[in-house]
Amino acid sequence: MNPILSGIAPSLIRAINARKRPGDIDLGMGEPTLRPDPAPFDAATERVRSEGLPYTANAGATELRTAIAGHFAFPGMGDAANVCVTIGSEEALYLAIKAVLDPARDEVLIPEPCYLAYPKLCALEGVRHRALGFSADDGFTPRADAVLDALGPDTRMVIVNTPANPTGRVWPADELRRLAAGLAARPGPPVYVLSDEVYRELYYTPERPASVADAYPHALVAGSLSMSNALTGLRLGWLMGPGDAIAAAIKVHQLVNTAASTFSSHVALEIFRRPETLAAHRPLYAQQRALLLDLLARHGIAHAPVEGAFYCFVRLPGRWANDSLAAAERLLDEHRVVTVPGIAFGAAGEGWLRLSWVAPPDALADGIARIAAFFAD
Amino acid sequence: MNPILSGIAPSLIRAINARKRPGDIDLGMGEPTLRPDPAPFDAATERVRSEGLPYTANAGATELRTAIAGHFAFPGMGDAANVCVTIGSEEALYLAIKAVLDPARDEVLIPEPCYLAYPKLCALEGVRHRALGFSADDGFTPRADAVLDALGPDTRMVIVNTPANPTGRVWPADELRRLAAGLAARPGPPVYVLSDEVYRELYYTPERPASVADAYPHALVAGSLSMSNALTGLRLGWLMGPGDAIAAAIKVHQLVNTAASTFSSHVALEIFRRPETLAAHRPLYAQQRALLLDLLARHGIAHAPVEGAFYCFVRLPGRWANDSLAAAERLLDEHRVVTVPGIAFGAAGEGWLRLSWVAPPDALADGIARIAAFFAD
Repeated sequence: MNPILSGIAPSLIRAINARKRPGDIDLGMGEPTLRPDPAPFDAATERVRSEGLPYTANAGATELRTAIAGHFAFPGMGDAANVCVTIGSEEALYLAIKAVLDPARDEVLIPEPCYLAYPKLCALEGVRHRALGFSADDGFTPRADAVLDALGPDTRMVIVNTPANPTGRVWPADELRRLAAGLAARPGPPVYVLSDEVYRELYYTPERPASVADAYPHALVAGSLSMSNALTGLRLGWLMGPGDAIAAAIKVHQLVNTAASTFSSHVALEIFRRPETLAAHRPLYAQQRALLLDLLARHGIAHAPVEGAFYCFVRLPGRWANDSLAAAERLLDEHRVVTVPGIAFGAAGEGWLRLSWVAPPDALADGIARIAAFFAD
Repeated sequence: MNPILSGIAPSLIRAINARKRPGDIDLGMGEPTLRPDPAPFDAATERVRSEGLPYTANAGATELRTAIAGHFAFPGMGDAANVCVTIGSEEALYLAIKAVLDPARDEVLIPEPCYLAYPKLCALEGVRHRALGFSADDGFTPRADAVLDALGPDTRMVIVNTPANPTGRVWPADELRRLAAGLAARPGPPVYVLSDEVYRELYYTPERPASVADAYPHALVAGSLSMSNALTGLRLGWLMGPGDAIAAAIKVHQLVNTAASTFSSHVALEIFRRPETLAAHRPLYAQQRALLLDLLARHGIAHAPVEGAFYCFVRLPGRWANDSLAAAERLLDEHRVVTVPGIAFGAAGEGWLRLSWVAPPDALADGIARIAAFFAD
């Protein structure tokens, strides 16, 4: 076997899920519970009837690539050549790390708490990576200075996630501008910013979250339809970026997967033809978030501001500050609520728990009440 | 950029396709032209209506994995744990190479002429690979002795493709048994056989082609619905093998792609529930093959025996023996027929051309006549 694999730890989320029993309240989920609109599937099936289901081009159907580039309209990324259609945003992350970095030399800087695939993908590709913890004291607000101060001589990529999993935080626009300016002012080869925007449509701030790609030419943006349209099973995403980086990513994509699903691409094209459908679920999330905040306030549970995504990062009582895994296990075994221990998202997440709040309202209320009881034990 | 990518040559097939003009006869294609059955798509869309489209498990839906394992019923590979559902057979090849080999030490042996992704995937993963040419004198008949003689001390994988792209040859069952026996008798760690069986259902021999997995415990079998069911755009395949190898492959698959498309998995399950549909297109191919063989005989064109897939490997006249690329370019520019030069499939393919024979009968007849005229020039 490839010895690199034994160095990649199995997921703590999976370990928790293995303890789950029927009837437990699941606040551990990492995907929407809403139903997707079936209309694009009917349209895509009609296309199969009339055209069959041949490969798309390796990089994706030109019409879809053009639609994606036009929809986001990031400066310098307006053409099909700036888009590779991928197997969800997961493959987009993989392609970015695999294509633009030199494993012999380059380093990736990863702010934590973070989606657990970032360091694992670096490990899988033999790329050095270093964590940088945002501060728990202000609820993990993303800070440009913290990133810029942590850059090393070999840093060639910074990973930014906004809205963020697990914290629910959004990068403030001025912090992104400061990050872009600081990186642009740096001598030497460019530092790529890999911006994971898979939760882009799920925000509860007054303004839509900014993207680093609005202000920085070396941005690589990963996105998908998984969260906005409740289509995690579609496996349809994209990597956007400068033409040379995307050309390198397409070379990897072609060898590893050939192309994304033509059927999923048809569904995606239907969605981008009616871009208002990308935002259709947002009011439902906003409503559920209001319920969540009310419950948390009522039970006096401390948490990071819930600005985006469908997670809430909750501070554990002091006695669990150094063992969120034990806390999550106890909460599951004794109070029958599934959550994810903060340590799963890096050392900076220790002492916290991630809740998903996409369960039905009654289950969410019951789950929060049980967590409050556990905290008060 | 990752320096490994600049060492991977762009596809000659793509270079040829870039010269193609409207109206050219396309005998260069690498996918079926038949239309797939739309019924499984209707059924899958109904499931989206009632269940939404959540992720499957990373390794694939258990029901589908069980159906695939049961359908092939290879010894020692009968359980869901022996199957990873993949993004077509392409990802299955990638996973096998990435998961079971140690790039610091192991070598892959690749019989040629071969599907051009094999050496490129090895290069992408930094795995040493060595070519072994089957003999043009007997039309590239696969020979176990040639492989066994070429094994080196570090060889840990042999890639077998049956029926084969580009030669259309099938590994004789007794040659596979000899290969298995020879490898099993070898001291030291096992040599995996990665068996690419993506053309498994398209055979014109009296018996279904044998699989090395019938007789060898260290087989890894890659397959998909792309060719059997004219579903290249479905991107749904599988890697089968021993449990420990599949567990390692799943770890890579989860990080790179999360999971295969849930919709495509629904379609696949419908197909495996009516396994006769896997073979439904075979009579149509057999009929077209009879036309092809008649045309080739009538024009006196020398070729390897067409035992499987939808390719025919044609011997170029002596003056092109060392430049199949120039021959393919001349044939395209002057006679307007797209083919693929044999050199695209490795040094052993030099002096040959690959034809796809899935074009409409009239176009196929016209194309073969033009090739005959070019050969007679």
